[in-house]
Amino acid sequence: MANEILIVGSVALDSVKTPFGEVKEALGGSATYASYSASFFTSVRLVGVIGEDFPKEHIGLLKDKGIHIEGLQVAKGKTFRWAGSYEYDLNEAHTLATELNVFETFKPKIPAEYKKSDFVFLANIDPDLQLSVLDQVEKPKLVACDTMNLWIRIKPDALKKVIKRVDFLFINEGEARQFANTSSLVKAGRILQSWGPKHVVIKKGEHGALLFGQNTFFAAPAFPLEDVYDPTGAGDTFAGGFFGYVAQQGGDISDVTLRRAVVFGTAMASFTVEKFSLERLKTLTMEQISSRVRILKELSHFDQP
Amino acid sequence: MANEILIVGSVALDSVKTPFGEVKEALGGSATYASYSASFFTSVRLVGVIGEDFPKEHIGLLKDKGIHIEGLQVAKGKTFRWAGSYEYDLNEAHTLATELNVFETFKPKIPAEYKKSDFVFLANIDPDLQLSVLDQVEKPKLVACDTMNLWIRIKPDALKKVIKRVDFLFINEGEARQFANTSSLVKAGRILQSWGPKHVVIKKGEHGALLFGQNTFFAAPAFPLEDVYDPTGAGDTFAGGFFGYVAQQGGDISDVTLRRAVVFGTAMASFTVEKFSLERLKTLTMEQISSRVRILKELSHFDQP
Repeated sequence: MANEILIVGSVALDSVKTPFGEVKEALGGSATYASYSASFFTSVRLVGVIGEDFPKEHIGLLKDKGIHIEGLQVAKGKTFRWAGSYEYDLNEAHTLATELNVFETFKPKIPAEYKKSDFVFLANIDPDLQLSVLDQVEKPKLVACDTMNLWIRIKPDALKKVIKRVDFLFINEGEARQFANTSSLVKAGRILQSWGPKHVVIKKGEHGALLFGQNTFFAAPAFPLEDVYDPTGAGDTFAGGFFGYVAQQGGDISDVTLRRAVVFGTAMASFTVEKFSLERLKTLTMEQISSRVRILKELSHFDQP
Repeated sequence: MANEILIVGSVALDSVKTPFGEVKEALGGSATYASYSASFFTSVRLVGVIGEDFPKEHIGLLKDKGIHIEGLQVAKGKTFRWAGSYEYDLNEAHTLATELNVFETFKPKIPAEYKKSDFVFLANIDPDLQLSVLDQVEKPKLVACDTMNLWIRIKPDALKKVIKRVDFLFINEGEARQFANTSSLVKAGRILQSWGPKHVVIKKGEHGALLFGQNTFFAAPAFPLEDVYDPTGAGDTFAGGFFGYVAQQGGDISDVTLRRAVVFGTAMASFTVEKFSLERLKTLTMEQISSRVRILKELSHFDQP
């Protein structure tokens, strides 16, 4: 089947504390959020690693959503764990603990059938692992990647090699400024583009997102939420929704499609942050997604004078 | 003549340092920026105070723009001075020195003819002075006000009295969170609205602006600039452009007009920050403004799926 996305990244058990409450060892991980989000738009092939302690119900959740998990390796040991907290303003995650566990020796092994995927999304993991995925896949139509401040700090060269080989880079606001070494987001977007990716999407949380294309620039607002309960996974959900929509459209990279992709990503992320873990996504319907897309249109529209 | 705006606020000599350079005792002040900006759209009556040392050329600049300055009192002593600096990220002004000078004893005296102005903009000054202006004017169609963190901190009660009596409140992002005591901007806007103003406009600098109306919500992006040389006056310019446009439209407060007003304010502010003081506004043309409005439309538009 065409339009399938291969998504490689982390599958985790997250312990998160926000001003509104906390959860212990809830389902998380960059590939988990991205896959679940993308699966609303297209067929998803998830590749990652879990430990023997990974709860069966989480597997069930992914399977029930139709996500292909033949590439989800079960390794000896414990599943990757992340613990973090958010202050009052919810803008930045503070990592309290990271237990790599099975991730320590993880080498992504792409199943033969998956190697021909037209769409490849490298969710946030070690850029060396992202490179090893790129070395295994065969002529994908479009490749996208996400990353985080940690890799920008400790593996900037490997990350630059990844970026050179992708069509889309997803990166958040602070990371874009950090990586491009400029306070100007507009400059940062252009600098990152000059390193390879045709398209750079800067995620700004409550301030929306910016799309830097080849001959286009698009600014989308965030969906206006009175309360954000837990921002964990918002960026992964955004990227999964964005790229899932692009895959659904057969990889069309016209301005019209890419702007819509930003808006779908925005809508998807707005649901994720309403509850912990994937709780809100679990009950989400396409009708609810479309409704938020309509609201985003309404709140950003103006008639030219 | 109808559609005239009365603008009361500060007229200052600013010394500003940014990562890109510095100026000494350049023309500034909330009423100055707001008046100059509004004057692109409608006729402006400026009320403020200057000292005997105020450079004649600045008077000439305002007069040449057609701004009515009969209400600009000349008091014994020196003109109000502000000195500030901006760090690398340009998001927040650090006040280095404030010399009130003639402002110390300033009592706004609204000329008889101005008291019947249909549109009144209380630019950022002491809320007690803003109240005294409101006590002098006669049945304006629309009143707007701006403020700053200082007054929120030291005169919250007086400021709340002002807000209760205005139709539009302009406030920046950090101030909105501070005043409404919430990290959520969406909540902050609604809380501020509940204190009186039918419309609240939250200015977010490089992230654009949010308009909270009675039955509407509008999110506008900022104009994408690679370099911001000096953010001083951007908020005043925004408010002046916004309210000047509303006045030009005869005080129409339809959704269509208010959204356009946000976009005109956005465009105006984007010019102010390109140079120090009013340097960029001095050479600005209506055609250049319209061009940026068109670009703002283009970069925020998407076709609904």
